[in-house]
Amino acid sequence: MALARPHRPHPEPALMGWGDPAQVPVLPDTVLALLRDGLGVRAPAAASPDPESIVLPEVRSTPEARAALSAIVGAEHVRDDHATRLAHTRGRSTPDLLRLRAGDAGDAPDFVVFPASHEAVLEILGLASRERIAVVPYGGGTSVVGGLECSSAQLTGVLALDMRRLNALIDLDEESRLATLEPGLRGPQAEALLGERGYTLGHFPQSFQYASLGGFAAARSSGQASFGYGRFDELVMALRVATPVGTLALGRAPRSAAGPDLRQLLLGSEGALGVITALTLQIRPSPAVRRYEGWRFASFRAGTAALRALAQAGPRPTVLRLSDEAETAVSLADPDALGGGGTGALAIVGYEGSEDDVAVRSAAGAAALASHGATRQDGAGESWERGRYQGPYLRDALLDAGALVETLETACFWSALPALYARVTEAIREALTAQGTPPVILCHVSHVYAAGASLYFTIACAQTQDPVAQWRAAKTAASEAILATGASITHHHGVGRDHRDAYLREIGDVGVRALRAVKRELDPAGILNPGVLLPEP
Amino acid sequence: MALARPHRPHPEPALMGWGDPAQVPVLPDTVLALLRDGLGVRAPAAASPDPESIVLPEVRSTPEARAALSAIVGAEHVRDDHATRLAHTRGRSTPDLLRLRAGDAGDAPDFVVFPASHEAVLEILGLASRERIAVVPYGGGTSVVGGLECSSAQLTGVLALDMRRLNALIDLDEESRLATLEPGLRGPQAEALLGERGYTLGHFPQSFQYASLGGFAAARSSGQASFGYGRFDELVMALRVATPVGTLALGRAPRSAAGPDLRQLLLGSEGALGVITALTLQIRPSPAVRRYEGWRFASFRAGTAALRALAQAGPRPTVLRLSDEAETAVSLADPDALGGGGTGALAIVGYEGSEDDVAVRSAAGAAALASHGATRQDGAGESWERGRYQGPYLRDALLDAGALVETLETACFWSALPALYARVTEAIREALTAQGTPPVILCHVSHVYAAGASLYFTIACAQTQDPVAQWRAAKTAASEAILATGASITHHHGVGRDHRDAYLREIGDVGVRALRAVKRELDPAGILNPGVLLPEP
Repeated sequence: MALARPHRPHPEPALMGWGDPAQVPVLPDTVLALLRDGLGVRAPAAASPDPESIVLPEVRSTPEARAALSAIVGAEHVRDDHATRLAHTRGRSTPDLLRLRAGDAGDAPDFVVFPASHEAVLEILGLASRERIAVVPYGGGTSVVGGLECSSAQLTGVLALDMRRLNALIDLDEESRLATLEPGLRGPQAEALLGERGYTLGHFPQSFQYASLGGFAAARSSGQASFGYGRFDELVMALRVATPVGTLALGRAPRSAAGPDLRQLLLGSEGALGVITALTLQIRPSPAVRRYEGWRFASFRAGTAALRALAQAGPRPTVLRLSDEAETAVSLADPDALGGGGTGALAIVGYEGSEDDVAVRSAAGAAALASHGATRQDGAGESWERGRYQGPYLRDALLDAGALVETLETACFWSALPALYARVTEAIREALTAQGTPPVILCHVSHVYAAGASLYFTIACAQTQDPVAQWRAAKTAASEAILATGASITHHHGVGRDHRDAYLREIGDVGVRALRAVKRELDPAGILNPGVLLPEP
Repeated sequence: MALARPHRPHPEPALMGWGDPAQVPVLPDTVLALLRDGLGVRAPAAASPDPESIVLPEVRSTPEARAALSAIVGAEHVRDDHATRLAHTRGRSTPDLLRLRAGDAGDAPDFVVFPASHEAVLEILGLASRERIAVVPYGGGTSVVGGLECSSAQLTGVLALDMRRLNALIDLDEESRLATLEPGLRGPQAEALLGERGYTLGHFPQSFQYASLGGFAAARSSGQASFGYGRFDELVMALRVATPVGTLALGRAPRSAAGPDLRQLLLGSEGALGVITALTLQIRPSPAVRRYEGWRFASFRAGTAALRALAQAGPRPTVLRLSDEAETAVSLADPDALGGGGTGALAIVGYEGSEDDVAVRSAAGAAALASHGATRQDGAGESWERGRYQGPYLRDALLDAGALVETLETACFWSALPALYARVTEAIREALTAQGTPPVILCHVSHVYAAGASLYFTIACAQTQDPVAQWRAAKTAASEAILATGASITHHHGVGRDHRDAYLREIGDVGVRALRAVKRELDPAGILNPGVLLPEP
């Protein structure tokens, strides 16, 4: 059945932070001074509670349901111990972390079930439908949009469906350059299995080290090298999905004219329509060379024009991103320039491929970038590479220090980009300043297409007494600005619960009706990740 | 509202043939001899009936419904005259043509309505839902899969909704390289409007000269230059759709993680879920140079391996297709080689772009093709270019001569391609030979992707007394072979009624349930193109 499985289990992440606690940086005095003098951070955050002291809601479960689940997966794979429930409480958004740090685990699952096969998932969904138990599919636990809240007002309990045992490389079709993989594989596990065979997915989002393939697909992830390798949804050629009413097996060719592309209905469905149990993904030969360069433009505006030109007319780097002036100042550790400009805008331009291919493309890229007025910034590419997965650890450290830090992202067509940038920045600044905590706002163009691009904002300010409410006000203001500009509420984080209301406005009444109709049909008891994408009825 | 509209109306196509009757070739004696001696064609087909003599079904319509439609679009845009009804009877598949040539117009619409705005379409759909009148959206009339049969067992009448008056270039966003166009524009009209402004869609399927933009989107068309420009569905960045329950406006960015991609639910919906009233499409600068080369491989197998290598590793031509040995023999007018091989396999490799770009890519392409053993075939590229839209006219001539001619296409992953080719060829040959009409079967790889490709078959044999039944037997056998190989029932022709049963098996029970749920929700009265994609309930 399985060609291979990971050689070792994936490390457990920190409970109230991103991943490996050893990687949380110690903030230097200069940064602490900046937090104090620039943002008005008064004191470090209160210490997080001892996990064992956190009170979990009482387990709601009948002995019959428990026995039935045990019959499906084995008793040892149905768990309701304190540590397991706590480890499956919500995802990794800033509010998620803040609530857990405040001792609030009100959304803990009643129990956690670990299936090992498609058939087991089907049986669990059937049982849960009959017993009216909510099912929250759980991959890497890295949702930053409230995609993993185990709560339901309607149902009689909630189980987290941890997919880690579905972790096989099922098939490798080298002729078609396709690998069929199970969804519980984490990013590094999948890359290791493929890398041993000479291939890569090329999918490296910031969440790469902890997120799972199923999550990448269910939330339409997009990696830092998406310009070269494509978004994760573009890599999915076929998929198998377990639903409460049976199995969906979609994808017989790369592209087809056989009706609507139903693959695209399940991609982005975030566990609300079914549980992905296998993915057939486009693979590429592992690149011999990976080279990341820094290029500095006079301004974010000039850099944006250059990125647009490359996206529309080439040459095509593998990685292409551009920080605004404020983010550039921080990246280059030039905090004095934070307010004032003068640093210009730093682009990261990366090439992956064979030696020849990288040589040819980087030469063409250099000429194109220079023609747009950019100059090489030595060391910036290497520095970006070293730090490419470190952002969430910096957030951990800043939260500890008493700052509020969060990110959000959006996408639009190129002609709307300047307005989107200005309006979202302004909305966040106003909302946080009104609460007495004027923020620092950094932004970069994170992904580009011929027709448009995404903007990724990082926001930091001092925490108020109620940082969850503080952040919610800023998030709401940003979402309103995004919708008013005609942009999409999310380019690669997904909808979850946090973006749900904006999402429903984005797709409009008729779109909501279509989505609800599919949900009712595939999940008649409404057990699948209730409250995600659509509100509970 | 409109930036521009076409300077002149689109020419009316032939009633019982493809397009411009003047372009139907006179078959040379060598071909006639081949039909007689090679295929056993005994006599020319009977002359087609005088159109005015064809009896149409009685118009089913209440005066009230008629008056209400007239109030929406104006009385002159609601027509039930004999010629207009006949001109909207079915599409352009071989069975469609054969039935009309036999005087059968049983699927004629009761009347034809010509709306000129999104709001008018919305009102018509509301009225039709209340009055239980089927609505068949009608663009260029070029469906070859039974997508335009105006019949319904359930409803009280059928109207064809002719979209030709929705023909504006609404907006041009040069910064984002997007054009917003109305769906009634035919291929050449859209290209003329964009060409005057320096742009092209790059979408040139064989149906280009008559098909409409709305049809391209609704049936997921793919053009001959799709390797360079992308499929039509890949060009659609946003769309507006009128449904019986209201308007869908989708697409705020090139890509998004905001839930399932609902654009992909409407693309390929073939008028069964809604009527497309505007499309925002990716455009490119008109290429300065278009260059098409012929390359000959030792065999179809060798050529297929080369195409796969180019699709997976580049360089990327704009056009890339490969005929099998039989099709090569016909293309090169070498009929003696038809049975025996020896001609090798002819590829057409085209480049479009700036002079420099074409020079660089064609040099790299030539090196890659030569490394796969291909040699240049002088004149073949130019010959392909001259004939690229002529296939349907040749069909007209062959049908007149008493032959049966039809095409079908499918797609799969690369590893399944040899089996797909062998099984479909064998199934068609057996089915037609069993009827005493052994066929000539030609095939080419028409579209390529990194993970797979499409196969396009052309079949010719002598007509029996009942050519529609004759063809149906062959089509059924081919469809079974396609499904058994795990391929898709259609790569770019669409589903219509002809592929419906195979399509439902392809997406499986749960897929059908999801699609039906959307249909019930958006089209509760079941008026939209009934029988297409899904059977009438």
